[in-house]
Amino acid sequence: MMKIARYLGRDGEILEGVVDGDEVHEISGLDTMLRGGRRVGRKQKITEVKLMPWGIGRKIIAVGKNYADHVKEMGGSAPPESPVLFMKPNSALIGYGDAIILPPQSTSVHHEAELAVVIGKRLRRASEKECAEAIAGVICLNDVTARDLQKSDNQWTRAKGFDTFCPVGPWVVTGLDPTDRAVICRVNGEVRQNGRTRDFIFPLPKLLAFVCAAMTLEPGDLFTTGTPAGVGPLQAGDSVEVEVEGVGVLRNDVRAQ
Amino acid sequence: MMKIARYLGRDGEILEGVVDGDEVHEISGLDTMLRGGRRVGRKQKITEVKLMPWGIGRKIIAVGKNYADHVKEMGGSAPPESPVLFMKPNSALIGYGDAIILPPQSTSVHHEAELAVVIGKRLRRASEKECAEAIAGVICLNDVTARDLQKSDNQWTRAKGFDTFCPVGPWVVTGLDPTDRAVICRVNGEVRQNGRTRDFIFPLPKLLAFVCAAMTLEPGDLFTTGTPAGVGPLQAGDSVEVEVEGVGVLRNDVRAQ
Repeated sequence: MMKIARYLGRDGEILEGVVDGDEVHEISGLDTMLRGGRRVGRKQKITEVKLMPWGIGRKIIAVGKNYADHVKEMGGSAPPESPVLFMKPNSALIGYGDAIILPPQSTSVHHEAELAVVIGKRLRRASEKECAEAIAGVICLNDVTARDLQKSDNQWTRAKGFDTFCPVGPWVVTGLDPTDRAVICRVNGEVRQNGRTRDFIFPLPKLLAFVCAAMTLEPGDLFTTGTPAGVGPLQAGDSVEVEVEGVGVLRNDVRAQ
Repeated sequence: MMKIARYLGRDGEILEGVVDGDEVHEISGLDTMLRGGRRVGRKQKITEVKLMPWGIGRKIIAVGKNYADHVKEMGGSAPPESPVLFMKPNSALIGYGDAIILPPQSTSVHHEAELAVVIGKRLRRASEKECAEAIAGVICLNDVTARDLQKSDNQWTRAKGFDTFCPVGPWVVTGLDPTDRAVICRVNGEVRQNGRTRDFIFPLPKLLAFVCAAMTLEPGDLFTTGTPAGVGPLQAGDSVEVEVEGVGVLRNDVRAQ
């Protein structure tokens, strides 16, 4: 198990580094990471670098309605027969510590704490076993959603696609079994969501096989697995945390536009 | 007005070139194109290069229900109050002459001929005027859709996101006014769709302003404007053409997986 962070270098380039205690030690890329992370560059204090989201330049595929208790709180009667897929645009990505901006178009922007995975190998019409083996690592994701627009638009793309609506971080953890992890959301320190990934309606390998039976997944793509019950509104001034057990805590403050 | 093609170079790199009659003349990139296309490289016969789609590595934003006659044929009673946005994944892109592959998950894959635009400047909360001025050029796009899955999934991402479901080409045309263009689809030479962009429910600058009020559009992103009436099924062995008046013809054959 390793924690791999992405962070800004001095010249604005995105570096990757192994997180070790309170330090991050530069390595040479995703391939290296998957082979064990040869450390090549300098060490810095993690508090002194700007952490960047994973997924920049890649696609972000998400599944809705994947915990029975969340389906229920959304007014659904039965779990979906097959996974409900949607996309978040790359332009929505922000990293640890960046602000979630509340747009004037919505009066009801909700947090949705999720466990996400970074894809490590190309997946096209792959088996569940191949999909499980192709997971490069696990990361925290907040599927921020304008709940009012989600309902009125019917299609979820805009409601889930505003700039800053896809916080991802703080780093990816390799070699972590995602099948029974706590997924927690806190707003201003108060627990609002507290689920476990063992309660998925569709297990992760099945979800990935379902996705890649339609669309090819490429190394670096993000897949996020849905949110447990307890979603609720964010207000300007709030601090929202997504914690995935064994990964860490993704924290973002909330601001008005 | 210039036609700018993207095509494969000898080493697998993607080149850009000005199309001049039956020849393509290499230039040095999108910025150059917007300034008038300094020609720097060699000339080749257009028939001897592999044309590539625009939009690779960028996001593809689309609008549904943007022609009243198509809303009607889909069983809708009134036009939508605001644009219905969705995304197509980058993994769905194919170019001129590539095959559309019918997946076994669907028994009803439809053509949707559309006028699409390539974004030339970053757009974030921009005015309609700024949006209109930021269009780098116009291109043909086929928003291939698994109609049965579009209905059963409710969210359109999977139905419109299969590999090969986003043919784009044959080239982008700069300096072309998109406001009153014929958009035509032919299957095996027979006209199936024949609309005009003047019949948009939401005009293009309004659509782009609506999108970038939510999500930032970046240079190279594709935006596609919806399809007129006449959508219908594609069968293995079909040849499907999308023509946008003043741009050219995008042709793709259809194959079973």
